[in-house]
Amino acid sequence: MLQRFKVPKDDEVRVAHDALTETVTSIFEKMGVQADDAALGAEVLVATDLRGVETHGVSNMLRSYVEGYTAGTLNPRPDVKVVSDSPAIANVNADKGLAVILGPKAMEMAMEKARNVGVGVVTMSNAGHSGAIGHHAMLAAKNDMVGMVATSGGLLVVPTFGAEPRLGTNPIAIAAPARSEPFLLFDAATSAIAGNKLRLADRVGASMMPGWIAGLDGDPIMDEIKLPERGQYYQLPLGGTREQGSHKGYGFGIMAEVLSTMLTGDLPTMVEGSPGGSHHYFAAYNIEAFCDLEQFKDNMDQMLGTLKATKPAPGHDAVIYPGVSEHEEEAERRQNGIPLHKEVIEWFSDITAELSLPALRTM
Amino acid sequence: MLQRFKVPKDDEVRVAHDALTETVTSIFEKMGVQADDAALGAEVLVATDLRGVETHGVSNMLRSYVEGYTAGTLNPRPDVKVVSDSPAIANVNADKGLAVILGPKAMEMAMEKARNVGVGVVTMSNAGHSGAIGHHAMLAAKNDMVGMVATSGGLLVVPTFGAEPRLGTNPIAIAAPARSEPFLLFDAATSAIAGNKLRLADRVGASMMPGWIAGLDGDPIMDEIKLPERGQYYQLPLGGTREQGSHKGYGFGIMAEVLSTMLTGDLPTMVEGSPGGSHHYFAAYNIEAFCDLEQFKDNMDQMLGTLKATKPAPGHDAVIYPGVSEHEEEAERRQNGIPLHKEVIEWFSDITAELSLPALRTM
Repeated sequence: MLQRFKVPKDDEVRVAHDALTETVTSIFEKMGVQADDAALGAEVLVATDLRGVETHGVSNMLRSYVEGYTAGTLNPRPDVKVVSDSPAIANVNADKGLAVILGPKAMEMAMEKARNVGVGVVTMSNAGHSGAIGHHAMLAAKNDMVGMVATSGGLLVVPTFGAEPRLGTNPIAIAAPARSEPFLLFDAATSAIAGNKLRLADRVGASMMPGWIAGLDGDPIMDEIKLPERGQYYQLPLGGTREQGSHKGYGFGIMAEVLSTMLTGDLPTMVEGSPGGSHHYFAAYNIEAFCDLEQFKDNMDQMLGTLKATKPAPGHDAVIYPGVSEHEEEAERRQNGIPLHKEVIEWFSDITAELSLPALRTM
Repeated sequence: MLQRFKVPKDDEVRVAHDALTETVTSIFEKMGVQADDAALGAEVLVATDLRGVETHGVSNMLRSYVEGYTAGTLNPRPDVKVVSDSPAIANVNADKGLAVILGPKAMEMAMEKARNVGVGVVTMSNAGHSGAIGHHAMLAAKNDMVGMVATSGGLLVVPTFGAEPRLGTNPIAIAAPARSEPFLLFDAATSAIAGNKLRLADRVGASMMPGWIAGLDGDPIMDEIKLPERGQYYQLPLGGTREQGSHKGYGFGIMAEVLSTMLTGDLPTMVEGSPGGSHHYFAAYNIEAFCDLEQFKDNMDQMLGTLKATKPAPGHDAVIYPGVSEHEEEAERRQNGIPLHKEVIEWFSDITAELSLPALRTM
C-alpha cells in the first residue's frame, strides 16, 4: 500500500489481533449471526487487517455491515440455496448473507469440486460484501490449490470516455502456494484506485494522483488534488486515461462482471431492474490434477525468488511480488498489534456501549 | 486501436480476405503443415486481421511462424500428448506445435468438458505462439459459452520498480455471447502496450506515450518519444508507474503466468532452466450449467446496450465496449478488403516467389 494511505503514527492505536477478533465476533453475534459464523466473519476481517489491507479489514467495513444488519439489507441467518449444480460448478443464491462469512464456504465448495474433477467454480448472487477477496483465494492456496475470486457490484467507475458510472470497482484476486517463499496473493480493484481507499484517503487526508478519478463530466482529473466531496467525482478504470490503458482496466472490470454477475443469471447493477447486491465468483484449481504438486511448489519458489532478486530501478530498494508485503505485515502485526485509527477506536467504543458489550481492549 | 497504429492510407494495399486465406493456407502447407491444419491456421490469422487486430494477424506474425518452421523451432505435424486428464481439466504438451492452430482444438476440448461438467480448463506447454487469444475465447462464445484464454512467455516486461525483464506481455482474454449486440470480446496484454504493437509502431512510425516503456535502468520514460532501437528499452506493466497502478498490471501478468505456465508444471521463462516456449490456458464456461442461456443472452444485450448508451465525456463521440470496434471493422473489411502495409505486401511477394506459390491477389 502506498505510504499516503497508512494511518499516521499520531492517530494510531494498537490492538492485539485476538482482542479484536473477540470484539468483532461478539458484534456479529449481537447482529443475530450464529456463533460459528460470527467467529468465521471475525477471523476473515481480522486476517485482512493482519495482512495490512486496512481498506477491507474492520476499519472501513465492519460499521457498514452493522448498518446492513440493522437496516435488514443483510440477513444474519441466510438460507443459502443452490440454484444449479454440476460436477465442476455451482450457482448459489446467498439470501442476503454477508459474503465475508459465505466466501470461505463457497471456496470450500469449489475446492471439493476441484478435488473430484480438477477445477471447481461457484458463483453467488444476492449476497452482501465479500471483504477482501484475496482472503478467499488464499484459502485455496492453503489447500494446495490455485484460488481465483472476482466480485462485482456498485456504480462507481466510468467506462473509458464515459461520463456516467457503469461498473463497481470489481476486484480480481489470485493466490497460489509456494514451498518456502510467501504465497502469491494478488488482489486488486480493476479501477485505478480501490473504492475503500477513497474512504481511507478521506480519513488520513491523502491526496488523489492524476488519473485516479474523473469529474462528473467524465474527464480524467490529471492534477494531484484533495478528494472532492462524495458524489462530486467518479472513479476511473485502471490505467486512468485511454493512452495509459484505461480501456484495459475497463475490460478487466467487465470480465469480473461477466464471471460474477452474468453467470448467476442476474442483470448487472448498471441496468435498470437489476436486483443489485454483490455478486461473487470463486474458482479453485486442484494443482495435483494438472501436474506434480511438489514440483509446482518448487517452481513457484523459483519464480517468486527470481522476482524478488530482480535488480531494482533507480530510487528503489527492492522488487517484490504480490503477497510479500502482506506476509511481512502479518508477522509484524501479530507481534505488535494492529494499528487502528483513533476514529475507528471511537466507533468501537460507541458500538460496544450501544450493544452492551465489553469495550475493545487496546494495547 | 489508437489511430497512431493504423496503417497510413498512402502505405496500404487492400487484399480480399478469401485471397489472403488462400495464400496463407498454401504458405502453411509449404511449411509442412497438413491441409486441414493449414486451413485452420489461415482462418484464425485472417479472422484476426478482419477484426482489425493488425498486431496479431498476418502482418506481424506469419513471417515469424515461417521462420520458426524453417528453423525447426516449430513442428508442422506435432504429436500433441495429454499429460493429465480429469473430467474438468486437461494438461497437454503441444510438441512444439503452433498454438494458432492448436488453440481452437484446445478450446474445443475445454468446451467438451464444460458440456459434461459445467466448466472445462485446458493448459498447454511446449507450444508456439497462439495468435490473438481473443479468437480462441470467441470460439466458446459462438458455442453459447463464456471463453477465457491467457498466455505467457518471453521476457519483455519489468516488474514494478524492477530493472530486469521478468514477464512476457502475458495477455488475458474473455468473450461472451449476446443476442443482438456484438459479442463481448476483451483481449489485452497485461503490459502497458502489447509487444506486437511495438513492431507495428516501428512500421507506421508511431511514438511511445509516457509510461509505456522504461529505459534499461528500469526507470519509466515519462516523455513522448520515438521507439528506441530493439534491446534499448523494456516494457512496463499496465499502469506504467506505481502511482498509476503498474503493480496491478504486474499482478495480472503473474496471474497469466500462473494459469498458463505454472499449472502445466513448467518453470516460467524468467527462471534459468525453463523450457521456454509459449504456455497457454483455455477455459470454457457452459452458461446453461449456471443459468438460463436465453436469459443470459438477453442480460448481455442489456448490459452491452447500457454501456454503449453511456453519455460520453467531453471531446468524445461515444462509449464502446470491448468487441464493438472489432465487429464494425470486420463488416467493413469483409466488404472492402484488409488493408496491409505495402511492406507486408513486399514480404508476401518475396515469400510466394521463394516457395513457388501464386502471388497474393490484391484488390
